Amino acid sequence: MLTVIGIGPGSESMMTQDAIAAIQEAEIIVGYKTYTHLVKSMTQDKQVIKTGMCKEIERCQAAIDLALAGHKVALISSGDAGIYGMAGLVLELVTQQQLELEVRLVAGITASIAAASLLGAPLMHDFCHISLSDLMTPWAVIEKRIIAAAQADFVICFYNPRSRGREGHLARAFELMQPWKKSTTPVGVVKAAGRKKQEKWITTLGEMDFEPVDMTSLVIVGNQATYCRNGLMITPRGYSL
Amino acid sequence: MLTVIGIGPGSESMMTQDAIAAIQEAEIIVGYKTYTHLVKSMTQDKQVIKTGMCKEIERCQAAIDLALAGHKVALISSGDAGIYGMAGLVLELVTQQQLELEVRLVAGITASIAAASLLGAPLMHDFCHISLSDLMTPWAVIEKRIIAAAQADFVICFYNPRSRGREGHLARAFELMQPWKKSTTPVGVVKAAGRKKQEKWITTLGEMDFEPVDMTSLVIVGNQATYCRNGLMITPRGYSL
Repeated sequence: MLTVIGIGPGSESMMTQDAIAAIQEAEIIVGYKTYTHLVKSMTQDKQVIKTGMCKEIERCQAAIDLALAGHKVALISSGDAGIYGMAGLVLELVTQQQLELEVRLVAGITASIAAASLLGAPLMHDFCHISLSDLMTPWAVIEKRIIAAAQADFVICFYNPRSRGREGHLARAFELMQPWKKSTTPVGVVKAAGRKKQEKWITTLGEMDFEPVDMTSLVIVGNQATYCRNGLMITPRGYSL
Repeated sequence: MLTVIGIGPGSESMMTQDAIAAIQEAEIIVGYKTYTHLVKSMTQDKQVIKTGMCKEIERCQAAIDLALAGHKVALISSGDAGIYGMAGLVLELVTQQQLELEVRLVAGITASIAAASLLGAPLMHDFCHISLSDLMTPWAVIEKRIIAAAQADFVICFYNPRSRGREGHLARAFELMQPWKKSTTPVGVVKAAGRKKQEKWITTLGEMDFEPVDMTSLVIVGNQATYCRNGLMITPRGYSL
């Protein structure tokens, strides 16, 4: 039995009851080392298998093999495992290899939701998630999605906004949105949500400083109605007040 | 002190630790009656104020007024309070009325994440949320967003897909997506996720039956790469397997 668990952005307090129970029930915990560290206090009596970055296939395969061997295995993924996480890869491997393995998926708080709750209420109207990592998606597809989302006035959440080797992606995304989003559009950034080093700030499309944004950051760009007041980023739902 | 809490889709097991703690700490619970019922087992020693549907402004104002009077108030919202929920309206009222009130927002599992974890891994690539309710959004704006999202090959999550007085909206949305999404595109539907009457099924864009879809349903339409195998809906992240 393999359980794929979204542990939320970082703190135990943002984990669901289901996620905590699933970790407690597991014999073996598999995960990227940063994430296994986040649940350390809950896994001291368990075997923990940590793998490095970019080892996603090996990590998922290891979890699958241990589960096939009869162990109760929990594969942990940050945020929600089904959003740019490990759930999809596990199911792809299991179906491709035609394995008889029960896989249980436990939902978690994804980065956009955690960030939004720290910024105010920026996701109160239609929004989309776009990952700016072109490791597995052609950059042309990403550009097309940014333009479509800006044109149709979605609130936009950028995952993987900026990291080594992709320093310019976020600035390019902002350039692409400019014809459709005003320079005064509020932009919220949350770094390391729910973790010790958490930081957040609100700026605008025109005044955005890309330098402090890194791969632990989540960037939310408002729609035409989004405003900022008392340090809060608010997208109105549309009530007449 | 007012805490706005996303209680997740229904079962206590999908609530976060923070949400449970916030309910326990509150003296007064305010919410739509269906949701106050969902947390009944946790609130038996508390004052519970239930309001009816479409009474959102009254509900939020009541919670604000009680908090201003010095009570510890928890306003509950299903899913995540910041996604088509009560968080935005509370912050709009507080800032508009220039109130000195501390508002704390507690993140929750929104319907799309809960539904996805029950269907497989349909949200593994860029996706968007579109509400098909035109009570507060012009239908033309909704149509524009549906077309933009389909053209740019987003996975699409439809909130408020179908309800009394809006029976035709989902069928119209499917019509609008047809030029860009193949008729074989997988579609997942989850009704009453995490509640006793939970139901789910996977079909295709071309074979969709709209009749069983209601306002407690969440509909997820795949992208060009989404497939269905062993009863699971999977959107590949892009790994070479």
